[in-house]
Amino acid sequence: MTTPSPLSDQSPVVQAAYRARAAAADLAPLPRAAKDDALLAVADALEVRTAEIVEANAVDVAKARAAGTGESVVDRLTLTPERIRAIAADVREVAALADPVGEVVRGSTLPNGIDLRQVRVPLGVVGIIYEARPNVTVDAAALCLKSGNAVLLRGSSSAYASNTALVRVLRDAVGGSGLPADAVQLVPGESRESVGELMRARGMVDVLIPRGGASLIRTVVEQSMVPVIETGTGNCHVYVDATADVDMAVAILVNSKAQRPSVCNAAETLLVHRDIAEVFVPRALAALAEAGVTVHGDERMVAFAEGSKASVVAATVEDWEREYLSYDIAAAVVDSLETAVHHIRLWSSGHTEAIVTSSQQAARRFTQLVDSAAVAVNASTRFTDGGQFGFGAEIGISTQKLHARGPMGLPELTSTKYIVTGDGHIR
Amino acid sequence: MTTPSPLSDQSPVVQAAYRARAAAADLAPLPRAAKDDALLAVADALEVRTAEIVEANAVDVAKARAAGTGESVVDRLTLTPERIRAIAADVREVAALADPVGEVVRGSTLPNGIDLRQVRVPLGVVGIIYEARPNVTVDAAALCLKSGNAVLLRGSSSAYASNTALVRVLRDAVGGSGLPADAVQLVPGESRESVGELMRARGMVDVLIPRGGASLIRTVVEQSMVPVIETGTGNCHVYVDATADVDMAVAILVNSKAQRPSVCNAAETLLVHRDIAEVFVPRALAALAEAGVTVHGDERMVAFAEGSKASVVAATVEDWEREYLSYDIAAAVVDSLETAVHHIRLWSSGHTEAIVTSSQQAARRFTQLVDSAAVAVNASTRFTDGGQFGFGAEIGISTQKLHARGPMGLPELTSTKYIVTGDGHIR
Repeated sequence: MTTPSPLSDQSPVVQAAYRARAAAADLAPLPRAAKDDALLAVADALEVRTAEIVEANAVDVAKARAAGTGESVVDRLTLTPERIRAIAADVREVAALADPVGEVVRGSTLPNGIDLRQVRVPLGVVGIIYEARPNVTVDAAALCLKSGNAVLLRGSSSAYASNTALVRVLRDAVGGSGLPADAVQLVPGESRESVGELMRARGMVDVLIPRGGASLIRTVVEQSMVPVIETGTGNCHVYVDATADVDMAVAILVNSKAQRPSVCNAAETLLVHRDIAEVFVPRALAALAEAGVTVHGDERMVAFAEGSKASVVAATVEDWEREYLSYDIAAAVVDSLETAVHHIRLWSSGHTEAIVTSSQQAARRFTQLVDSAAVAVNASTRFTDGGQFGFGAEIGISTQKLHARGPMGLPELTSTKYIVTGDGHIR
Repeated sequence: MTTPSPLSDQSPVVQAAYRARAAAADLAPLPRAAKDDALLAVADALEVRTAEIVEANAVDVAKARAAGTGESVVDRLTLTPERIRAIAADVREVAALADPVGEVVRGSTLPNGIDLRQVRVPLGVVGIIYEARPNVTVDAAALCLKSGNAVLLRGSSSAYASNTALVRVLRDAVGGSGLPADAVQLVPGESRESVGELMRARGMVDVLIPRGGASLIRTVVEQSMVPVIETGTGNCHVYVDATADVDMAVAILVNSKAQRPSVCNAAETLLVHRDIAEVFVPRALAALAEAGVTVHGDERMVAFAEGSKASVVAATVEDWEREYLSYDIAAAVVDSLETAVHHIRLWSSGHTEAIVTSSQQAARRFTQLVDSAAVAVNASTRFTDGGQFGFGAEIGISTQKLHARGPMGLPELTSTKYIVTGDGHIR
């Protein structure tokens, strides 16, 4: 028997992946208590070593300011003692969640007497490619550890100093509690090439989860040989049915669009049934105007805007596809629920679509025909979220259909294994 | 609002995918009865139109013979009236299975009163790329239809006439029972390029399932932009522990290797604990010799063969990795269970590994440490099979960790959708 070629021949990224595989093999059989102890040690260490983290973060913040980065991005990059305390509290919450590993998903005794069990096991090595916010570093590591996975973290170069400090603290705490420190690693190198190596590490990395802007996600999805879970692009729709309660529809529309426009579960398109348009649209335009939202309307929508105070511009084809993530919304009047569904099937990113209706038939038809990760009936699109769904934590929101769809909690970070137990059974 | 560019601009494969998407949208909300009626119509049509199918098949068989194809391949290609009756019976069995679509996977009322349900929905459009055997055409179409999916079938060019006839019969029966005929389509063209187009059809095809040889699977896995489920490569191991019952171990070894060597759940490597080697190996070598199996042994295994009638050759590194699919097995003596696990982690394709042991601790440790789709304790590797597991049917055996692992039945051909129902809930 031979061993694989020496690690020293390999690139730093491949070496990190090999070490992660070894760590994953050690993590997989660990009982919950061992993983929780490590997570609590991580939370404590983040608080004890706050100064070290804030200092490293100041380097990134200074660089960002010097590069003329906008204040909102700088704000998301900034770590304060208070924010670090909040991050540590999140880690303690992850420790308090149930361990998905070992759960028997299905089990039976076969007619021949064999006992069959399908049990949850960790995925193995999870690669996360993400942008800007350094809190993702800790969140992702905590969720992966809890689910028995080793994690390779590839944050943005703009947060490199912060991430380096955070991962140092994480590794010290994990190693100090007796688990392999290599369960948490920052992918070496700030260059784009390290992302490429990660995408080619099939067989060493079990899944890649890109978290960030649409172009990052597209690149990973198209180029990766490692299986990918596509997350987070949300061109979400609110459809106001002919039978909608108008007050409810206005409230859901404004909440879906404007409560937090920068997130993936915010609404980006409004579709209104023509039979309610005359009553609903003027009220909606007024409410959107008050919330500071610009409407990109089709012809019928623009006609309603005449004489109103609303900020309405003519929509182009691109508007139906856009994820604004800003105080903008595309809007159209449609002739039927079926037309609305057709529009959604054509343009949606498959994240979340809401219907506001008083008709049981319309609710049933819309939820049957719309093919998205989540369909809301008389509720804001903003509820599609691991926290809101009661999952306790979320590694991202999948907009693909394989493996996981919608908010992904701890069970979505696992695979399964069949255990086949006999007494010498042969075929 | 606009519509996408006219289909006539697109390649035939893309046009087929577009038609499949439209068909999938129609299939998704159908109740079980409509799908079962179509399946029963398919089964009847296969029997009624047997002559037409056999005639088309004769063209492929003649071509194969003329090309000097081996008899075993020609046999697998051949359709007889009896075989067509068996295929029709399989379709009726699929109709009798439970419909996975609509199953509520999880559900609860959230603290804020929102009702949350996660329900199974079809994947949408499933692409199957497969080799030689035309019965896969019908099997795959039946499983996809039952689970509400449209299917794009890309069989091998050597079965093109057979597949064309089968798909014509399928489409007539499906269309005749009121379902969209485009739910079942043969991918146009016999060239390799049509596989390439299928692999680039991201957003139109939801998943590709390659079924066939290792090189086909590797190509699809590495090049596809459409998500892939990797199936069927099985370098399965039988580990005989120090405490094994020797009779049981010999029986499981011979059954795992020789009952049907051409399938993916057949054993390809034997690992024997050194403490039982002296008793077990001579018996094993004799039994393997009797079954006509050649052993590719490491040094210690070769030493046991001296003076015996066994056919034993020295193993090279390549033997640890090979999926023989023939009357050959690699074999080594190992110093411990941990060494066996290490060997398996290094070389296995992650399909099925078996341990033969009388030790509860060894069984527990082996099942915990081995990271494969199925782990058998005192049972043949040959049980890893959808039929054996009681799934009623199988679209393939996944050796990857995402989405589905192990034998894939109907539920593995579905995704899920969250239904979020409120009374005007906003955040």
